[in-house]
Amino acid sequence: MAGELESLEKLLEKHIPPDELREVWRLLYGKEIRPLDLPSCASQAASKAGFDLQGYGFEAAQEQTRRPRIVRVGLIQNKIQLPTTDPVTEQISALHRRIAEIVEVAAMCGVNIVCFQEAWSMPFAFCTREKLPWTEFAESAEDGMTTKFCQELAKKHNMVIVSPILERDSVHGDTIWNTAVIISNTGAVMGKSRKNHIPRVGDFNESTYYMEGNTGHRVFQTAFGRIAVNICYGRHHPLNWFMYSMNGAEIIFNPSATIGELSESLWPIEARNAAIANHCFTCSINRVGTEHFENEFTSGDGKKAHRDFGHFYGSSYVSAPDGSRSPGLSRVRDGLLVAEMDLNLCRQTSDKWNFKMTGRYEMYADELTKATQPDFKPNIVRE
Amino acid sequence: MAGELESLEKLLEKHIPPDELREVWRLLYGKEIRPLDLPSCASQAASKAGFDLQGYGFEAAQEQTRRPRIVRVGLIQNKIQLPTTDPVTEQISALHRRIAEIVEVAAMCGVNIVCFQEAWSMPFAFCTREKLPWTEFAESAEDGMTTKFCQELAKKHNMVIVSPILERDSVHGDTIWNTAVIISNTGAVMGKSRKNHIPRVGDFNESTYYMEGNTGHRVFQTAFGRIAVNICYGRHHPLNWFMYSMNGAEIIFNPSATIGELSESLWPIEARNAAIANHCFTCSINRVGTEHFENEFTSGDGKKAHRDFGHFYGSSYVSAPDGSRSPGLSRVRDGLLVAEMDLNLCRQTSDKWNFKMTGRYEMYADELTKATQPDFKPNIVRE
Repeated sequence: MAGELESLEKLLEKHIPPDELREVWRLLYGKEIRPLDLPSCASQAASKAGFDLQGYGFEAAQEQTRRPRIVRVGLIQNKIQLPTTDPVTEQISALHRRIAEIVEVAAMCGVNIVCFQEAWSMPFAFCTREKLPWTEFAESAEDGMTTKFCQELAKKHNMVIVSPILERDSVHGDTIWNTAVIISNTGAVMGKSRKNHIPRVGDFNESTYYMEGNTGHRVFQTAFGRIAVNICYGRHHPLNWFMYSMNGAEIIFNPSATIGELSESLWPIEARNAAIANHCFTCSINRVGTEHFENEFTSGDGKKAHRDFGHFYGSSYVSAPDGSRSPGLSRVRDGLLVAEMDLNLCRQTSDKWNFKMTGRYEMYADELTKATQPDFKPNIVRE
Repeated sequence: MAGELESLEKLLEKHIPPDELREVWRLLYGKEIRPLDLPSCASQAASKAGFDLQGYGFEAAQEQTRRPRIVRVGLIQNKIQLPTTDPVTEQISALHRRIAEIVEVAAMCGVNIVCFQEAWSMPFAFCTREKLPWTEFAESAEDGMTTKFCQELAKKHNMVIVSPILERDSVHGDTIWNTAVIISNTGAVMGKSRKNHIPRVGDFNESTYYMEGNTGHRVFQTAFGRIAVNICYGRHHPLNWFMYSMNGAEIIFNPSATIGELSESLWPIEARNAAIANHCFTCSINRVGTEHFENEFTSGDGKKAHRDFGHFYGSSYVSAPDGSRSPGLSRVRDGLLVAEMDLNLCRQTSDKWNFKMTGRYEMYADELTKATQPDFKPNIVRE
């Protein structure tokens, strides 16, 4: 991507002297986090396979009655591998191969839970508004080829896998959903979590393809901690994060596909705010690169029809409940971010800040119920 | 404040070349905003009176059926003026004089609505847990000396004033509240808005002094736009911002008092997220400086007893619904931030992103009601 910056972090590090840089990071990214000492075989493999590898550790205080609950999480961002005009199954297989390669490195780094980007087994073709061949990328969440592929990976590496795909639900009249499949480290499908909020914004007119999810705010009790998945546009909805947290999520993944012009200044804010507001970890994953399509389409933004969506800016990152965050992965390259977290930090932060205790949810349940009524009267004071 | 940085913005501007700085601001602060051309008499007065003066303009697209709705908002941050051991009424009067001086400059800059910091007519003495003399700073919201002072200012300058004070409510058994008084540009008291969420965090053990507010989520229809006030700790609660927005607020003020060690990395995130999530402007105002008290007190953080709270880091700023934000005021000096905003940007952003339309509030009202029940069962999936 000529002209695209590799990352904000690299730019700041290039220009700011180390003593002042420390204060910049404190103000921008919160409490200092520890770079992980990843095995050299992993760094070499990442370098050879041409992807960005970074690792950071988030620590918690020692407790007397609970042992530290250390988990290593992996976030993967990647480009599509073949042109969007290639046969569907070849495109899928090429993505499987790329992900297998990156997950191999995640395993070297001791990752326990890995999450891929939104609709990872396909190009993000929803901008086209065309149905074929794109709906052919939809697969059964329970036994599609992508789920089977993930089950093998999960077993091989003893790793929980969060696999966001386009789901074909043949049990309910061939409905299509935007769904994350959660696969246990044993290889079993634990269940699925569907995208709750669907955008109708510019090129993201996804309601052409699927509707609002009906799986609510499930949390999955994995061997390594309680996780939930808030897919893409759901990150703009604070109540969506909140309900996953109320159901007990300690880590909420946000697999996404979003582009620079539209959302890049929102990207560092929303998931990090959710980590703070809900006393949990959030993992933000964005696609990377530019995807080209055969036929022109319009974005509804008054500009000319075009054949690409814009630049997916990557920049995947992890936020902690104490407001600290990791640097972002590359804005232009594939990447694997490894985050080691002590999940005890969630309850420790909750005990410090007490947002759930001071939340007054009875009042809000009542006000929200009233606000959804057609005859709702806003509370406006006039002189 | 020896050793305290003046501002993040100045540090970045010192080191980063202009062409790269543009991209840094885009990534950190969103769409470029316009520095306001403030009158030179205002700059001179600010310089003479020793406070930071900055001005920025947020623009909206032209519409055919609505005219631009331009409003100028002023955010004021200030230190206390006298030692906390001085007589109560002298401390109050000195603060009145300082604010009158800064509001005079706001008037030169054409400000229509001004908001002061939380409990602006007193030191933030709640850390002491002592009652006298601090409760003597509490005044009637309707006709206390501070409200009368603000009414005169409002009439003189044709300015709406948001005046957050410690309120003595003699009608209800001498109850004390943390309250913002909203004074119309005509000088009339429009009403009051009480702090909805009360912290019990370290030195912020404010529930010793006042309880959760009972004025709900009122919005005030002023001559210059619909405003609401989310006081301090309420900014950690996304539902609090949300209900002000559902009641129609276009600008939500967040008068605060918060210190570096505790919250500085959260400060740029929460109010900005609220502006994005609710399609409105948010105005974040923080106290500045360090306040010393006569008797030692403990923070409940395992450290030694101390006589000051820590450093209030100022850094007041404005966030727009499109995710852009202004630079912050000084971390160490008094300041006035003038923001010109076209309120049409709120509905334009809502029409673009549709968060209220896609919010699924019926579902959340139902889930939230269930979550508040003592026998609530979290939705947890096990293998």
